[in-house]
Amino acid sequence: MKPFPLNKAFTFLEPGPVILVSTAGGEYPNIMTLSWTMVLDFSPRFAFMTGPWNYSCQALIKHRECVIAIPTVDMSKTVVSIGACSGAEVNKFEKFKLTPLKAEFVNAPLIKECYANIECRVTDYIKNHGIFVLDAEAAWIDEKRKEKRLFHAIGDGRFIADGEKISHRKIMAAKLPEGV
Amino acid sequence: MKPFPLNKAFTFLEPGPVILVSTAGGEYPNIMTLSWTMVLDFSPRFAFMTGPWNYSCQALIKHRECVIAIPTVDMSKTVVSIGACSGAEVNKFEKFKLTPLKAEFVNAPLIKECYANIECRVTDYIKNHGIFVLDAEAAWIDEKRKEKRLFHAIGDGRFIADGEKISHRKIMAAKLPEGV
Repeated sequence: MKPFPLNKAFTFLEPGPVILVSTAGGEYPNIMTLSWTMVLDFSPRFAFMTGPWNYSCQALIKHRECVIAIPTVDMSKTVVSIGACSGAEVNKFEKFKLTPLKAEFVNAPLIKECYANIECRVTDYIKNHGIFVLDAEAAWIDEKRKEKRLFHAIGDGRFIADGEKISHRKIMAAKLPEGV
Repeated sequence: MKPFPLNKAFTFLEPGPVILVSTAGGEYPNIMTLSWTMVLDFSPRFAFMTGPWNYSCQALIKHRECVIAIPTVDMSKTVVSIGACSGAEVNKFEKFKLTPLKAEFVNAPLIKECYANIECRVTDYIKNHGIFVLDAEAAWIDEKRKEKRLFHAIGDGRFIADGEKISHRKIMAAKLPEGV
């Protein structure tokens, strides 16, 4: 994993892909699968929604940090399977043969097999909506991997891989954040 | 536009596409383009983030309702152009030759040219984060249109169209909401 510019890290969440979130603090680190996420600021600041039905929720509340890992479409079966079992019963890194890597600023591990990883601090928790607000502190990328297409949940058990790219940079020029 | 089951309306937002949001209350109805959105509940409940830099923000705060319209990839140039100008200066329905249709529960109009429309009530506004929480009251679909691929913002002025579909319904069976 190589360092990735923090001011561009929002570009991994902006398209709304399925993500993994790693947390530490229990007997072993845990991973959950999330689709209910959004960008809040280019800084970058993110939000995601989860609740007590996810074992990771308590670790987020208690330790206030996590890693957002960005999987690609070749990992979709693993990612969905991670979301279908609980860290209360299984060590997901072991079960799914994923490799935890030491992060720089947080105790939660990076996931080596993912395309990108973003170290995040929980800076707010809007309990009545289950919304966690996260500020990123570092981002990492695996530039060498071939498959770079992200994938998106439809919500009915089906998923959509990234398709063709379209540029509207000229129309958006005045609105793009600096350096992006 | 035909009625679409409200319990499935979240499937339009879950993949994280670029959306349009229509509001009423000014001299003419307005439209803004948003990418910072997420699902909060299957009911369905949504969240999106915007701020005073968007002319529609005041209408959302004052009238507490809107329509979320789902454009498809053939509309991407129009959708991005809608996001690059302000309703303070231009009537976007006129400028972009879009057709406002009367909604059932809200004063904000549906957008006829979009694939789907969701009538929403603003039920909370988390001002310090610019997060609007919306509960949907009705959903509509144009089943006859050929292009159904949504598109996603990367954040750098480029966009990604929906690609291939993958089913993991068997793995997810226990987690799918009823009837979806």
